[in-house]
Amino acid sequence: MVKARLLALRQVLREQGLAGFVIPHTDEHQSEYTPAYAERLAWLTGFTGSAGEAAITLSEGAIFVDGRYTLQVRQQVDSHFFTPLKLHEDPMEDWFAARVKTGERIGYDPWLHTRDWRARMSRALAEKGAELVPVAGNPIDALWQDRPAPSAAPAVPHPLAYAGEDSANKRQRLGADLRAKGAEVAVLTLLDSIAWLFNIRGQDVAHTPVVLSFALLYQDGRAKLFLDPAKVTPELQTHLGDGVELLSRDSFVSELVRLSGKKVLVDPRKTHAAVFDRLDDAGAEIITGDDPCILPKARKNSVELKGARSAHLRDAIAMCKFLYWLDREGPKGTVDELTAANKLLRLRQEQPLFQDTSFDTISGAGPNGAIVHYRATPESNRPLQPDMLYLVDSGGQYLDGTTDITRTIVIGSPTEEQKDRFTRVLKGHIALAQARFPKGRSGAHLDSLARKPLWDAGLDYDHGTGHGVGSYLGVHEGPQGISRLSFSTPLEEGMILSNEPGYYKPGEYGIRIENLVVVTESRIDEEERPMLTFETLTYVPIDTRLINEYMMSGAEITWLNIYHAKVRELIAPHLDGEEKAWLLKATESLMAL
Amino acid sequence: MVKARLLALRQVLREQGLAGFVIPHTDEHQSEYTPAYAERLAWLTGFTGSAGEAAITLSEGAIFVDGRYTLQVRQQVDSHFFTPLKLHEDPMEDWFAARVKTGERIGYDPWLHTRDWRARMSRALAEKGAELVPVAGNPIDALWQDRPAPSAAPAVPHPLAYAGEDSANKRQRLGADLRAKGAEVAVLTLLDSIAWLFNIRGQDVAHTPVVLSFALLYQDGRAKLFLDPAKVTPELQTHLGDGVELLSRDSFVSELVRLSGKKVLVDPRKTHAAVFDRLDDAGAEIITGDDPCILPKARKNSVELKGARSAHLRDAIAMCKFLYWLDREGPKGTVDELTAANKLLRLRQEQPLFQDTSFDTISGAGPNGAIVHYRATPESNRPLQPDMLYLVDSGGQYLDGTTDITRTIVIGSPTEEQKDRFTRVLKGHIALAQARFPKGRSGAHLDSLARKPLWDAGLDYDHGTGHGVGSYLGVHEGPQGISRLSFSTPLEEGMILSNEPGYYKPGEYGIRIENLVVVTESRIDEEERPMLTFETLTYVPIDTRLINEYMMSGAEITWLNIYHAKVRELIAPHLDGEEKAWLLKATESLMAL
Repeated sequence: MVKARLLALRQVLREQGLAGFVIPHTDEHQSEYTPAYAERLAWLTGFTGSAGEAAITLSEGAIFVDGRYTLQVRQQVDSHFFTPLKLHEDPMEDWFAARVKTGERIGYDPWLHTRDWRARMSRALAEKGAELVPVAGNPIDALWQDRPAPSAAPAVPHPLAYAGEDSANKRQRLGADLRAKGAEVAVLTLLDSIAWLFNIRGQDVAHTPVVLSFALLYQDGRAKLFLDPAKVTPELQTHLGDGVELLSRDSFVSELVRLSGKKVLVDPRKTHAAVFDRLDDAGAEIITGDDPCILPKARKNSVELKGARSAHLRDAIAMCKFLYWLDREGPKGTVDELTAANKLLRLRQEQPLFQDTSFDTISGAGPNGAIVHYRATPESNRPLQPDMLYLVDSGGQYLDGTTDITRTIVIGSPTEEQKDRFTRVLKGHIALAQARFPKGRSGAHLDSLARKPLWDAGLDYDHGTGHGVGSYLGVHEGPQGISRLSFSTPLEEGMILSNEPGYYKPGEYGIRIENLVVVTESRIDEEERPMLTFETLTYVPIDTRLINEYMMSGAEITWLNIYHAKVRELIAPHLDGEEKAWLLKATESLMAL
Repeated sequence: MVKARLLALRQVLREQGLAGFVIPHTDEHQSEYTPAYAERLAWLTGFTGSAGEAAITLSEGAIFVDGRYTLQVRQQVDSHFFTPLKLHEDPMEDWFAARVKTGERIGYDPWLHTRDWRARMSRALAEKGAELVPVAGNPIDALWQDRPAPSAAPAVPHPLAYAGEDSANKRQRLGADLRAKGAEVAVLTLLDSIAWLFNIRGQDVAHTPVVLSFALLYQDGRAKLFLDPAKVTPELQTHLGDGVELLSRDSFVSELVRLSGKKVLVDPRKTHAAVFDRLDDAGAEIITGDDPCILPKARKNSVELKGARSAHLRDAIAMCKFLYWLDREGPKGTVDELTAANKLLRLRQEQPLFQDTSFDTISGAGPNGAIVHYRATPESNRPLQPDMLYLVDSGGQYLDGTTDITRTIVIGSPTEEQKDRFTRVLKGHIALAQARFPKGRSGAHLDSLARKPLWDAGLDYDHGTGHGVGSYLGVHEGPQGISRLSFSTPLEEGMILSNEPGYYKPGEYGIRIENLVVVTESRIDEEERPMLTFETLTYVPIDTRLINEYMMSGAEITWLNIYHAKVRELIAPHLDGEEKAWLLKATESLMAL
């Protein structure tokens, strides 16, 4: 099948005078979860990972993936047609540069690449006398039979009771910011920015309740929203009101062209080259700057925070029921990764306001827990059995908030090494949960607090410590983060982040302890500086059977005991019988040693 | 006097058709300590601080200084002639933009500004229809009677026994790097880079043993060194050998012009605009990149590290004698900040290989200790007396190494608050001293470890935690550092840094505990990653009378006891009588509580 598709695609390229083509894994909106109609990389190569890109010439092909997917790409992609290469170490520019000849033209879809990418690739090709040229329409779309249409699910209003600020207000506020920046209009292409600004939600992308759309926001707070008319209900029209003009998604390009002479704000890191090209054609004056929704969206208002606490409470009830069930059933050897994930999904579905999981559940037993972005399949599925660690990382999309939690559970008995590693991860988690820091500091300054107990033993983990989380939106949301790279955004009150240090022993086990936290003002006596701290949102027992108490300080044991007392206070009233008895036992205080 | 000088300068500007002029505090080499001949800012305004700049029009003047100098600038500068403004908050561009008229020309000296500065200022002036123009020579130099000549002190060879690698080898090594970067020649203007590359030292700048010079380094390791012929001795010529052509400092410009058609590496952040202009005039092909000496210089070789340990031992002997004397004399009330600093200098001068202090000693009693960059003057001088904290930050330039140490000593009895703050600073110092971290991390990731005990109490300090230190070179040396901003340079084996957290209560007291440390490979059992750690170089007692032992963990007390045992082992053999008895008492173990 791959062979036939490649033949057909190369035929089209030849007809268009192209010597090659680039197939990235993205859509027009840089969505993390790509809608089905944009899964061109999977269609052509068979690769279904969340990050990757392919390149072809008329005779060769390559697929570029990162360390997470080196195994998967070998399983899914025929290396005869696509040589597997490393996404960051082996730049695609170099691959083309080694193959193109003078005068050749390589095609790209300007709706799927940033200007920076284009500049880099153009330069590399130009050095070989070749040229990078835009295609008028993506040639794969014409070949792709049964290509799914973009979702026509309705766009639904996100009620003020969850959003906390009405759209007109947000638009006024951001419009004033545009004026301050000297821009008359901002182009919005990020789906979560648009969903936030207009207080709308949809079902167009897996796990993230966004609406396929584009938007223009003007200084006076008026806006144009471009979306499939099939999505528009009378309720939506009432919700959006007079200040928002509804236009079809297809008319976005023709509206860009009408921005002639206007000062237009565009985010160069988040917007594909095609938008810039249309604005350049129109003679618009482009002002580059951050998408104006990103930072306001990250700072949750008090209504969103109340919703987050409420969603986390319900999510914790489902998680506690799941952990009770797991403790009962796990040691029997009859549960496997897939049945466990299904059980957890059913328990979440019982909770009010639950809409969807916020990402594909990671349910990893034993060695599968050591694969950071593991997804159980019938082929990889392992039974849970003594003595094994089980790692479950999952979350829910509730109307009032988005959750994300990881727990590591011992089935049977842990080894001393596992207890040592778990305790170090927990100490790091507690250090970050308790951190107090001056305003103006970014997550990059806090990352080491969570890693120190591992570093002390010469250990570490290869992922960030925390990512931003949306409010019934993306479970991964910028600009805030806690990692070696999150320098540029100071943490601010109301930002929600994950706190998820881990430890992974390949081929043996994985450990991660993840709660969501919200940045809050710190208020203690004698404070001399404006300080911030974190409030934990997630209240679910942490497996004390995995703790080596001799490694914990008195203050750390106190933190854990207070945490478990709060779990008990919040969750026990919602459980009965054996489930409640389990919770009381799981949240018993540890004695300081 | 200021009035007369301003009148004369404005007259010169008028004659040259200029409506204003900029007077920065720097020299042609971006030296931190400016040689006397380049102290134009002090000559014109009276301001002697280490950072600042002035701007004048034909009728107005302003002086821009940072928070350290707001008090000093008011004492030294007549605000009638120069309005004091804030260096970073009040950009000079804005000051000019609010004053210039269309067609006016503002002068600047291209040997004292980077291209980035020029671009920013030009843009701001252009928006007002004005122009930034270079002056042919700095007009102040012509007016400045008795302007000191640049130092004619000889350039002396820095022996291989201290440098550890001969200059020919360094030049070969860096020449190969140039080839890899596609550059034929590198322009060197930083004095410590040149001193390091050629293994030469001088006496041309206070506290930093560098030689006023420029240099060109070629791919094959040959070089041209531009310096005053008066500095050249037969010994120097023998030392430099055939591979180095000696030319007068004045001929640097004419040599730049001869680089026509050559690929020339220049560091845009460290090199003034005049160099770029000459190269542009010559039609050279400029390749911008870091000064190729900076990183190799920062990674000390084993001979330099041996020298550093030896210099720190001798420096510690002087410090211990001083602290003994201080404990005996301080409580009498007969010692003041200036006499204390002089006593310390005399004790250092008794040590072999001592050349100079590595910076102006900070000797601050009581409230003066809270001024981070305090320098005692006859007017500010305070007596040491009970009950007071005394902060002394000082260092030495020894032929085999550069030292920098801060100790905070209680005269009489401390308050509970002082003990609390001192103990937090010490805990931060210990956390950093003991830090183990993966290769690839920068100082920005470690900064919070030193601040955490203060942050926990809502406290902080407004300076970096650590700066790089040279090897018988600058006491402040990049690119390594430990601060919120030191992201860009991963820490590497052999880099020397300070570890100096502090706490300052304005008007009352200041606390800082500073040792130098060197980055070393960490070797512990079961280490899974290549890790780094620090080896402490400075061994001088830390005042245990200021410690609240109840706030210290067992591990922290153990660190301190091992530290003091090492001080005793290293220093006691070099002391006798009362001094030795004092040391034994000052290094007694604390009991873990």
